[in-house]
Amino acid sequence: METTNITSAILTTEELLEAWQGHRRLTRRVIEALPEDKLFNYSIGGMRPFAEMAMELITIAAPGVEGAATGEWKEFGEIQTPEGIKGTTETKDELLELWDWTTEKIEEFWPQIPEERFQEYDVAFGQYEGKIWWHIFYFIDNEIHHRGQGYVYLRSLGIEPPFFWERK
Amino acid sequence: METTNITSAILTTEELLEAWQGHRRLTRRVIEALPEDKLFNYSIGGMRPFAEMAMELITIAAPGVEGAATGEWKEFGEIQTPEGIKGTTETKDELLELWDWTTEKIEEFWPQIPEERFQEYDVAFGQYEGKIWWHIFYFIDNEIHHRGQGYVYLRSLGIEPPFFWERK
Repeated sequence: METTNITSAILTTEELLEAWQGHRRLTRRVIEALPEDKLFNYSIGGMRPFAEMAMELITIAAPGVEGAATGEWKEFGEIQTPEGIKGTTETKDELLELWDWTTEKIEEFWPQIPEERFQEYDVAFGQYEGKIWWHIFYFIDNEIHHRGQGYVYLRSLGIEPPFFWERK
Repeated sequence: METTNITSAILTTEELLEAWQGHRRLTRRVIEALPEDKLFNYSIGGMRPFAEMAMELITIAAPGVEGAATGEWKEFGEIQTPEGIKGTTETKDELLELWDWTTEKIEEFWPQIPEERFQEYDVAFGQYEGKIWWHIFYFIDNEIHHRGQGYVYLRSLGIEPPFFWERK
């Protein structure tokens, strides 16, 4: 009889997906909370407006989860985007539409990531070497990082940010 | 013969520890990068100075990892702190000393968390119900969130923040 080392899972893939989507729901609220002109033009210390940060997150998330699933790391422009948007947004509605499109892409590709794949090494976007779990964590951590910056933008504008713990 | 569902681990407990400590090394660099007076007094939009955010992280991390390991959720003041510090800091050196003490506490208690414990529910600090992995992720995510805010403080002061991807 073969024996196998059973490793307890810290968390399941479904739980990790839900944690990520929970963060994404919170980030969506930050986009919603910023007045449209501030979303695209407001900056502190020469940093990017929050719309540009959100676009960075979008351009990482959808091709990133596809790369994790398939091993093919495409650029954002190479994957199908909602008609009429094509990777640039000029209004809050367009940005939110692209955000929600990304949510669907994540839901579509996530179940296609084989469980053992999280421990495999891959070169994400042809540039970054690491295990798949690390890449996914990086996507999430980078979002939390920029969203925290969005909180400062909101506070400096006198706008109450959403509760950090609210992820529904 | 009993059969057991073998779940592939997304990541190992050692990898999660290293990811956390990597984030903590980066946060330490943000503390170091802020001039001492700005660390304790500078604020945007009525938010707390970064020293207060860092103290929040310290008061969560050490008792948090002990709670994850033992099921006993103590307040920060109840656990042993370095002599002469007692949970308040007035200088950058004191804050960094307490940060490094926390690093050691995490290293001490982390290996005492049983692997299966990450999937157990517990009420962290007597208030927050969730699985242990969720609590640990919350500690880490909360740190990334506040550190992102520290980056805005730095940028607004004309100081280049450390690279986000540098975790050594």
